[in-house]
Amino acid sequence: MSELPPSNRATVKRQPRRGVYDRATIDAILDQGLICHVGFSVDGETFVIPTIHVRVGDKVYLHGSRASRMMQALADGAQACLAVTIVDGLVLARSAFHHSMNYRSVVLFGKASIVEDDADKVAVLRALTEHLIPGRWADVRGPSEQELRQTMVLAIPIQEASAKLRTGPPKDDDVDYSLPFWAGVIPLRLAAAEAICDPKLRPDIEPPSYAVEYPGPR
Amino acid sequence: MSELPPSNRATVKRQPRRGVYDRATIDAILDQGLICHVGFSVDGETFVIPTIHVRVGDKVYLHGSRASRMMQALADGAQACLAVTIVDGLVLARSAFHHSMNYRSVVLFGKASIVEDDADKVAVLRALTEHLIPGRWADVRGPSEQELRQTMVLAIPIQEASAKLRTGPPKDDDVDYSLPFWAGVIPLRLAAAEAICDPKLRPDIEPPSYAVEYPGPR
Repeated sequence: MSELPPSNRATVKRQPRRGVYDRATIDAILDQGLICHVGFSVDGETFVIPTIHVRVGDKVYLHGSRASRMMQALADGAQACLAVTIVDGLVLARSAFHHSMNYRSVVLFGKASIVEDDADKVAVLRALTEHLIPGRWADVRGPSEQELRQTMVLAIPIQEASAKLRTGPPKDDDVDYSLPFWAGVIPLRLAAAEAICDPKLRPDIEPPSYAVEYPGPR
Repeated sequence: MSELPPSNRATVKRQPRRGVYDRATIDAILDQGLICHVGFSVDGETFVIPTIHVRVGDKVYLHGSRASRMMQALADGAQACLAVTIVDGLVLARSAFHHSMNYRSVVLFGKASIVEDDADKVAVLRALTEHLIPGRWADVRGPSEQELRQTMVLAIPIQEASAKLRTGPPKDDDVDYSLPFWAGVIPLRLAAAEAICDPKLRPDIEPPSYAVEYPGPR
């Protein structure tokens, strides 16, 4: 199992015991995360933008309009900091101080490169779609040449990254365990409700299995 | 309903029709968001860190250890960009290109100030706890003087902020509506599972209603 050599900025400083640098853990969080938040700076201003991502091998891919401020900044060489966070639960301790969350997060630093080749871009868009909605690509009209031209695809290598995790029950101060307060975990997850058909849907088309029982990102 | 005068950096550039600047919309998203992602730059490096927040009146509050890189940077005057994103559903169009998400997001820019007064800090910690787990504050051992000293509380004014939303069904190109593909929305929400008691819980204590039927942040 490969381990990333942590750079200073990618080293978990707070609660360092929660820091993990192995690629299997990092990849699993990137793959199960529905969205990411991308930070970058332009002319001394820092921005954070939510967007979707997909990991393929040793890279994380983003896509967007060529007109997007984020895509332009990253394409122009701005350093990106990409965060993927999955909240697994609320941790209720007896003391306010020890309340916490169970979570899995990845922070990835790097510079993006532009994916220029059309076939490569389509492969990334396919991977993005399959990451979010496994099985969907077989049921879509693929991108036209014009749509591909409008879409920028960027790749960020997974070289400087760390994962941070918390699991398990609360940890209270010894003297607090006798307090008359409930303590434990409220597990949280992203849940899908019943799929809603487009009002303009052809009446002969039923919702496919991946929409009826949406499995979550993969 | 108050409307923020949008600054350049807080103006929604992509899909400007999705941009909203009224405080009621912004506040509702801040209040319903479970976590935020905070961007800031130190010595030319941009970081994005997930953390929890609470809005009280015209400010968003963060808290953390005095030793935290993020808290130190913000306390030292780094510009913060705070993003809160709620994903409401996956939008499946007939074309790959028009796939989208339904979401509500806020991006807030500002500089933090330190909340110094102990009573004010306790009020923020109480609001944070009640935001995440309504009803919990009555059931906790409050912060000790030492815990308060270790905890830094920061306030960011809601002055430069925008919301961005997408709702509703997919929008396809006219020619694509006849394609034989399902289209619609898979609604998503954060769901709580059955509360898990701390293995060290006193046997006479039952889970409280806010843990049995967790209502989500407020």
